[in-house]
Amino acid sequence: MTDKPLILVTNDDGIHAKGLSELVEVMRLFGEVVVIAPEVSMSGMSKAITVDRPLRASTLSREDGLTIMKCSGTPVDCVKMGFNHLLERTPDYVVSGINHGSNSSISVIYSGTMGAAMEGCLHGVPSVGFSLLDYSPDADFAKAKIYTARIFQSVMENGLPRFTCLNVNIPKGVPKGIKVCRQTRGKWMEEFEKRTDPQNRQYYWLSGYFQNFEEEATDSDIFALERNYVSVVPVTVDMTCYSTLENLKNWRF
Amino acid sequence: MTDKPLILVTNDDGIHAKGLSELVEVMRLFGEVVVIAPEVSMSGMSKAITVDRPLRASTLSREDGLTIMKCSGTPVDCVKMGFNHLLERTPDYVVSGINHGSNSSISVIYSGTMGAAMEGCLHGVPSVGFSLLDYSPDADFAKAKIYTARIFQSVMENGLPRFTCLNVNIPKGVPKGIKVCRQTRGKWMEEFEKRTDPQNRQYYWLSGYFQNFEEEATDSDIFALERNYVSVVPVTVDMTCYSTLENLKNWRF
Repeated sequence: MTDKPLILVTNDDGIHAKGLSELVEVMRLFGEVVVIAPEVSMSGMSKAITVDRPLRASTLSREDGLTIMKCSGTPVDCVKMGFNHLLERTPDYVVSGINHGSNSSISVIYSGTMGAAMEGCLHGVPSVGFSLLDYSPDADFAKAKIYTARIFQSVMENGLPRFTCLNVNIPKGVPKGIKVCRQTRGKWMEEFEKRTDPQNRQYYWLSGYFQNFEEEATDSDIFALERNYVSVVPVTVDMTCYSTLENLKNWRF
Repeated sequence: MTDKPLILVTNDDGIHAKGLSELVEVMRLFGEVVVIAPEVSMSGMSKAITVDRPLRASTLSREDGLTIMKCSGTPVDCVKMGFNHLLERTPDYVVSGINHGSNSSISVIYSGTMGAAMEGCLHGVPSVGFSLLDYSPDADFAKAKIYTARIFQSVMENGLPRFTCLNVNIPKGVPKGIKVCRQTRGKWMEEFEKRTDPQNRQYYWLSGYFQNFEEEATDSDIFALERNYVSVVPVTVDMTCYSTLENLKNWRF
């Protein structure tokens, strides 16, 4: 037994992603780390769960303060497997990432990185998803790691309310500081590229660009990121639209 | 050209599910219907998007007022493909279901049915996910269809705010009426069944049971469903936890 906190680390880019090992390096400063990460890339898998086939998990390595396991499922499956079967004690924290690429604004709903963080907070422990605004596989995480440590330390000090996790996005380069923000209203546009295969059949690649519906909203995460601040958005798993709820009660069905 | 509304119908149980054809039957009462549904079951796929391989889509049949297409992607991919490429005009509504099984409480975050509805409202059109609390492939949708029609008609009359869709769950048997609700606080427990394969290796099947954290909350969707009411929950794609946001501004990072 140890009195160090147990930190469950996962991601959606998969067990071999650079961002995962960078996150592990940071988390080892704070406690005992168990990695349970998808064996392949699960980017864009949101909060998907595997219902139609069984899951496998295996331990890849074990050393003092660090155990690394892979799982055949999604990021949410990894977290569920950790809490329900793979871990000897309940983890104190779930951290996910560091994602290669942004999960700001509406991307939070598609993100496997954030899916894992949401699952963590559902299990009643403070949970954070970290993303760096750099898609390249060999991105430079040096500055991102400093902010990851700072924010995680604040989470340890302050805790988080049940059913709430944090979505942290970190700009490329040298961040100016940290801003607490809300999710920017926006969406992805013209999202597919149409191509023709050698058999003359059409296929589609996900593509497109992000459209910000509120460029001037100074409290939005994109606004902060565009000005080189790290954005921290508290995210809830309660998807009820309370502002609509009251109005809906007046409907005559 | 027609002045009938164009209704995009999808689901997560796949193109061959009974619930889909039942929903199509209802929607043909209200307008021109185009089905774009996953070619295989995508249950539990949440808001997953396909990023690592191209998508295919093809038309299976076309008759007056009804076109049926299948897509190789997730429910969210189906909706995105509809809006961006497959439909000749922008649909007026997106409806998803009728799901075989409940999507109440926390299941809303894992649900592919609701993933599609959320994607629909992101595209700026009123969108609804319908689910029947019966997992069997040959479930009886007779009563569910009546409530589906009633609720859809109300949506046509009242509209829905942008970025908000409806999560409709329908009890088995004869519903007593309709209740507007919020998402119940709860989670799935002990979620895997551990088995051993013939090679003596372990594997895990998703399983478990739902735990309601607020049995007595009269305004929650589970409370309504347990009393045989149809639950209607307005769902937002803005996942910001506003109650935590203010508190977080006082953190010293």
